Amino acid sequence: MGDSVLQPNLDAAFGQLTEFWSPRVVATANGQYVKVAKVKGEFVWHAHADEDEFFLVRRGELTIRYRDRPDVVLREGDFHVVPKGIEHNPLAREECWVVLVEPADTRHTGDTVSDMTKSIEEQSASLG
Amino acid sequence: MGDSVLQPNLDAAFGQLTEFWSPRVVATANGQYVKVAKVKGEFVWHAHADEDEFFLVRRGELTIRYRDRPDVVLREGDFHVVPKGIEHNPLAREECWVVLVEPADTRHTGDTVSDMTKSIEEQSASLG
Repeated sequence: MGDSVLQPNLDAAFGQLTEFWSPRVVATANGQYVKVAKVKGEFVWHAHADEDEFFLVRRGELTIRYRDRPDVVLREGDFHVVPKGIEHNPLAREECWVVLVEPADTRHTGDTVSDMTKSIEEQSASLG
Repeated sequence: MGDSVLQPNLDAAFGQLTEFWSPRVVATANGQYVKVAKVKGEFVWHAHADEDEFFLVRRGELTIRYRDRPDVVLREGDFHVVPKGIEHNPLAREECWVVLVEPADTRHTGDTVSDMTKSIEEQSASLG
């Protein structure tokens, strides 16, 4: 048992985010990325053909709009999985902090490319 | 856009846990389980040959002891990935609430079987 080592902190990672809708990777495990994102306003309608997407709201309120089922409202501490292949669109009226878990190769706008699309490289850039 | 639906909440899930070292599955995505666990005291030394294990502390303080590297101390909001194949032992002096993300077939005591071992079925039982 050696010296102990301090570890990264979720809120510290959120504190380093300066741009909305620009997820950043904070951990990798089993081919999955854990990401943090600050969001505000409406994103874009999209689907991930092969990947489920886990959402956990850390702060604020996130609505996930669906075309084929009731919308989902997530408040602080609430979580939800968007199933693969299902079209959805996240929406936050005020600033909202979201933790995401999804496969490393998931494109955050799915099959949709828009001027909000961030590459995996942009998402993997170091924070701070 | 239909009626909105309330979603499960992490702290509500923790509130339903009545036993230490008994993780419960709260979400599934991409073959991974998201689990919540209340822990107190020392667990058992073990390794997961093929699975990384993501830890996020929701409340309290968790030490992850290693044999071959410095221990890790996680406080509220801190997170850490235990790499596959690395022997480790979690330890909490006081009650601690932990979120785990790991492959659905991960045995929480790894290759070690002890009287603390909970089956995947036990971990998948509904809360509440």
